[in-house]
Amino acid sequence: MSRRKKSHQSHGTANRPRLWGKHAVTAALDNPDRKVLRAWATREAADFMRFPKEVAVTFADVADLGRLVPHDAPHQGVVIEVEPLEDAWLDDILTQAAENAVLLVLDQVTDPHNVGAILRSAAAFGAIGIVTQDRHSPPESGVIAKAASGALERLPWVRVVNLARALEEIAEAGFWRIGLTGDADRDLKDALGPPRVALVLGAEGSGLRQNTREHCDALARLPITGAVESLNVSNAAAVALYAASTR
Amino acid sequence: MSRRKKSHQSHGTANRPRLWGKHAVTAALDNPDRKVLRAWATREAADFMRFPKEVAVTFADVADLGRLVPHDAPHQGVVIEVEPLEDAWLDDILTQAAENAVLLVLDQVTDPHNVGAILRSAAAFGAIGIVTQDRHSPPESGVIAKAASGALERLPWVRVVNLARALEEIAEAGFWRIGLTGDADRDLKDALGPPRVALVLGAEGSGLRQNTREHCDALARLPITGAVESLNVSNAAAVALYAASTR
Repeated sequence: MSRRKKSHQSHGTANRPRLWGKHAVTAALDNPDRKVLRAWATREAADFMRFPKEVAVTFADVADLGRLVPHDAPHQGVVIEVEPLEDAWLDDILTQAAENAVLLVLDQVTDPHNVGAILRSAAAFGAIGIVTQDRHSPPESGVIAKAASGALERLPWVRVVNLARALEEIAEAGFWRIGLTGDADRDLKDALGPPRVALVLGAEGSGLRQNTREHCDALARLPITGAVESLNVSNAAAVALYAASTR
Repeated sequence: MSRRKKSHQSHGTANRPRLWGKHAVTAALDNPDRKVLRAWATREAADFMRFPKEVAVTFADVADLGRLVPHDAPHQGVVIEVEPLEDAWLDDILTQAAENAVLLVLDQVTDPHNVGAILRSAAAFGAIGIVTQDRHSPPESGVIAKAASGALERLPWVRVVNLARALEEIAEAGFWRIGLTGDADRDLKDALGPPRVALVLGAEGSGLRQNTREHCDALARLPITGAVESLNVSNAAAVALYAASTR
């Protein structure tokens, strides 16, 4: 067990995560708010990436790079160590929200692949940001950045201490809060009325917590058959974001 | 390298894949077409699973189970070794297709997590099956089964030798073949006219191959912003399936 822990820590920490892959690294280098501490790359990848002068690049071969990141991580020849981004503030994104804004709220979704894919879809469908509860959401990591395909650098991510309190603020800002849950009577399409929408999704398996449900204005389901119990949470988020952005 | 290969093979093979996790295993046990060769479980999980009498169960502790499956696989106390399912036949699913049927065609999507999530979403939105090209699609595996959350056992999966020829047969059966690609001019919503629809998706990065595009009746895009280049392929499939099933 201690061996596992150690090997894990050598792949970056929550305070100094490592990002890899051309998309994720390019997006980080393009982000003026992202502080890049170190970089490793193959000569080939370094040519491709065009690191800014202030970033110190250590040349390394593919095998060395493999040891800097988790087992089997598709690093594509480039790894950087960074500082986590500053959290976005809920106030800021609510104040700037357009009349038809869509916001995504995640209640205890912890799998970094899913959170990364959700960031990517949220950016793709023009959501103004995602809101998670600090204690129950994964820290920035290479897995999230890779799955987010650049969106980690571009989409505001608000981490709050108290999700119920955040949902109250979101309502005060004129958002209609729709909780997605398989046991709702109403289809999402029919719940999407008013202009500003906050889509609230829970973890796979446990779903939305009771207190979260109570802080929604409506509960709605996606129109799925009984062939499976539910969708993967990132797929559910993508469908809900599409439905909201095309309403 | 040889160590890796060996350890990989001990987690099941393409001919005798191992499935794990309660959802995937329950679905396999419930599938009359699935031949289960062996089973391993903790006492607790075995009580939960209620294996049929004809399945020989070896009791094992969590650590032993961990060695039967890939590193970090969430086996939830139960692992089975099975024979792969017989492939579904394209003819059969086309002949039985309802007037508003939706079919999903994957052009070289190889990541098993994505393929599994796509199976799950396809079953969820009532698609009649998925079609892949044999040489360019992953074999059945525990990763696919876990991500599919039961859908691997329930959704017909057709593996064809020649995807272009299959697309011709699909057209002859009255399906309108829509290729999803970011460079299309038309939104998917506007391309979804006629009743039977085949949604054709390509691999992330490379997209649809030229010959596949030429075997589509229309090319269409999902309405995403420029904030990211594309969606994760399973998220794109989920959105397209939702749009087609609610058309």
